[in-house]
Amino acid sequence: MTGAARTGALLPAEDPALPRRLAASARAVDGVLPPTGTFDDWLEERRRAHPFRVDRVPFAEADGWSFAADTGNLVHRTGRFFSVEGLRITAADGPYGQWDQPIIRQPEVGILGILVKDFGGVPHFLMQAKMEPGNPNLLQLSPTVQATRSNYTRVHQGSPVRHIEHFVGPRRGRVIADVLQSEHGAWFYRKNNRNMLVETDEDVPAGDDFRWLTLGQINELLTRDNVVNMDARTVLSCLTPFLPGRPEAAADGAHTPTPELLSWFTGQRSDRDVEVSRIPLRETAGWERDEARITRPDGRYFDVVAVSVQAGSREVARWSQPLFAPRGPGVIAFVVREFGGVPHVLMRARAEPGFRETVELGPTVQCVPENHDPAERPPLLDYVLAAEPERIRYDALHSEEGGRFLNAVGRHLIVEADDAHPVQPPPDCAWFSFDQLGALLRHGNYVSVQARTLLACWNTMRTTR
Amino acid sequence: MTGAARTGALLPAEDPALPRRLAASARAVDGVLPPTGTFDDWLEERRRAHPFRVDRVPFAEADGWSFAADTGNLVHRTGRFFSVEGLRITAADGPYGQWDQPIIRQPEVGILGILVKDFGGVPHFLMQAKMEPGNPNLLQLSPTVQATRSNYTRVHQGSPVRHIEHFVGPRRGRVIADVLQSEHGAWFYRKNNRNMLVETDEDVPAGDDFRWLTLGQINELLTRDNVVNMDARTVLSCLTPFLPGRPEAAADGAHTPTPELLSWFTGQRSDRDVEVSRIPLRETAGWERDEARITRPDGRYFDVVAVSVQAGSREVARWSQPLFAPRGPGVIAFVVREFGGVPHVLMRARAEPGFRETVELGPTVQCVPENHDPAERPPLLDYVLAAEPERIRYDALHSEEGGRFLNAVGRHLIVEADDAHPVQPPPDCAWFSFDQLGALLRHGNYVSVQARTLLACWNTMRTTR
Repeated sequence: MTGAARTGALLPAEDPALPRRLAASARAVDGVLPPTGTFDDWLEERRRAHPFRVDRVPFAEADGWSFAADTGNLVHRTGRFFSVEGLRITAADGPYGQWDQPIIRQPEVGILGILVKDFGGVPHFLMQAKMEPGNPNLLQLSPTVQATRSNYTRVHQGSPVRHIEHFVGPRRGRVIADVLQSEHGAWFYRKNNRNMLVETDEDVPAGDDFRWLTLGQINELLTRDNVVNMDARTVLSCLTPFLPGRPEAAADGAHTPTPELLSWFTGQRSDRDVEVSRIPLRETAGWERDEARITRPDGRYFDVVAVSVQAGSREVARWSQPLFAPRGPGVIAFVVREFGGVPHVLMRARAEPGFRETVELGPTVQCVPENHDPAERPPLLDYVLAAEPERIRYDALHSEEGGRFLNAVGRHLIVEADDAHPVQPPPDCAWFSFDQLGALLRHGNYVSVQARTLLACWNTMRTTR
Repeated sequence: MTGAARTGALLPAEDPALPRRLAASARAVDGVLPPTGTFDDWLEERRRAHPFRVDRVPFAEADGWSFAADTGNLVHRTGRFFSVEGLRITAADGPYGQWDQPIIRQPEVGILGILVKDFGGVPHFLMQAKMEPGNPNLLQLSPTVQATRSNYTRVHQGSPVRHIEHFVGPRRGRVIADVLQSEHGAWFYRKNNRNMLVETDEDVPAGDDFRWLTLGQINELLTRDNVVNMDARTVLSCLTPFLPGRPEAAADGAHTPTPELLSWFTGQRSDRDVEVSRIPLRETAGWERDEARITRPDGRYFDVVAVSVQAGSREVARWSQPLFAPRGPGVIAFVVREFGGVPHVLMRARAEPGFRETVELGPTVQCVPENHDPAERPPLLDYVLAAEPERIRYDALHSEEGGRFLNAVGRHLIVEADDAHPVQPPPDCAWFSFDQLGALLRHGNYVSVQARTLLACWNTMRTTR
């Protein structure tokens, strides 16, 4: 029993000081630690310290990986890490009816954790310069810990995962957020990762690849292309419910009452009739395999390829692995507008075959335009692409998880709608106030990973105002 | 677009009047409608109006049902309703290791809905007297609507589902709650039902089998044995987040801060290593089938049996169906206590094979004592059974869903722990304030159906104080 149980005293259910402290961290755009060179110098130095090289290789040269004799699944000889298998989707509605596709299966829950610590009264976040073979520029800013269970239980006999002790085992710090969030439902089969922020008072020897940054510093980096990796973005989005709220005057106001929004979402989830079954990779119709890739003759969606990696900054010095390579860059956008002075975002209920619960809230627009014929352009794609500069609140390139995806870059846009540029919400869309959406971030399987990235981007504006 | 969108005006995100109105309904123990005889007279009259008869039959006499030639699964000739299939569970930890069992598979989402309407300034709930073949007394008080999609799309060509128009199609009323909640993870494979409360201003001709009751009247019935059915209890539990809260003085105080509780739950869900796969019913090891039941030679857990039903009050006048029949009565208990004046409940993280997300929050104790050898009594079972009368806050028998389970009766207990009777919480248990637990009821896959029943029972005390 804790002290509260023994004495009968109560603890605050929520930390009342957290919003104020996060706001202070967001305002601290220069950081408060003694300067150790600029961030860019540090990242460049890390790049030099860890020479690495990534090469596309034929599957036969991907050490440790092979196609299983019975299923054709692409598997590692240990049976761990992940496998590429087949998925068959039968959708009662929607434009595609039935299709097969390769999918990544990785049943274990990974940990994406950021360690938080107060320096000079301002919370700092311990970020890592980490190489991932699929990142367009290889080295990006990552969470303190980004580890599959295979990593931190050291299946591949690599070095221990630095700082993992703050996130597993007996609790050493104070948890800010800890929630199982989904990853890409189009590419992963029912994958969840544990998104954690833990605050510590301990002395933490950070290490050369790590740096304490304020939220203000991270926010500045989030406005640049391909600097902050996906894993960092999703963990940062979990701060949303704790960021300072709207002005008191507007408290509790929204375009749509919360019970109606939750009901709309429940309806979307109940009514989508999608049947998903795992099949052997060799039976995926519409896909072909040659010595170096699994691909579609029509050139759409993605290829499965293999790379060989030689690096010093990763847990083991040399390895091969498969990656999914999308066939074109994505467009991932929020359409936002104010109602009665309160900012709202138009969320789209997306069914993706790998989601554990069929439907999650995704961005207003999420697609690879090249995959769509002119006759079937996704709703609002042209609306966001044609937006005048003064309506574009945010515009940057970010890549998806470079440990699984090769150059999966998307243009991330936040576009303002207003009475002069009215938007016609499709029936699978609904307006959420950012407070309403943020509250859902405390729970899993609501907000998709792409929407979480855009929330992290949105928060860069919200927390500095 | 709604009015708010056009005018830029905001609506309250939450209905501020709802807690006060629910409290008024809870205080209205006599109801405010013109008396039409007592509730007991009405239920008795309904019983007489609908003569019915339920008989155990051999599977061969269960009209429309048969064992599929290839799998041995017990299926209906239409392929609809539900099927009894096999499940193989491999648990890395826990006392049972690996086992097989029959499981009910019913992929469609059902609707459990209660219609709410104001009479004389007091919200009333439209309840139905409904026969279910597995209920110990057949007729119980049910939600306004309790329908599988097969029911309301009329696959079995029965009569239309009364009042369904308030819960599907274009919204006619104001939604109070609408959330996908799990059902029994030990007996159903990934089953969710849509739990809804919708308030209407329309004139609703209730019908002879229906009656408008206040929350106070329902609460009184919930203290009796086997009157309020499971479906009504789970829908009523969804009112928990909207019931009047604790006194202001104690606002926001809890034994454990919410982020720590959510983190504990995320850890429980992440760490349970349970692999579940569907198998043909004929391959379930440890189970035997004769002409009238599927059973275990060791006499544990449950039987699968069949019944034939003749009734007037159900959608069709005559049918047969399988039911799961537990081998003994259950004990389902909350251990509660106050910390600093705020009531808390000790929730147990339960892994059940049919849960969609492996683990949910269950009651402190949930078991059929007969299934356990003296050496492996579940934690705290004896603690609740040995409680002195003055520590027993609630004690009644309720049965699980009589449409699927035969005489699945459990003794439902709420037992007070205090400093004089300290409880040793097992490591998979945590203290939640009722506010903390209630907030989770707005989301699915958190609180198990047995815990939701106990919450509905707890609320009978909470809302009348």
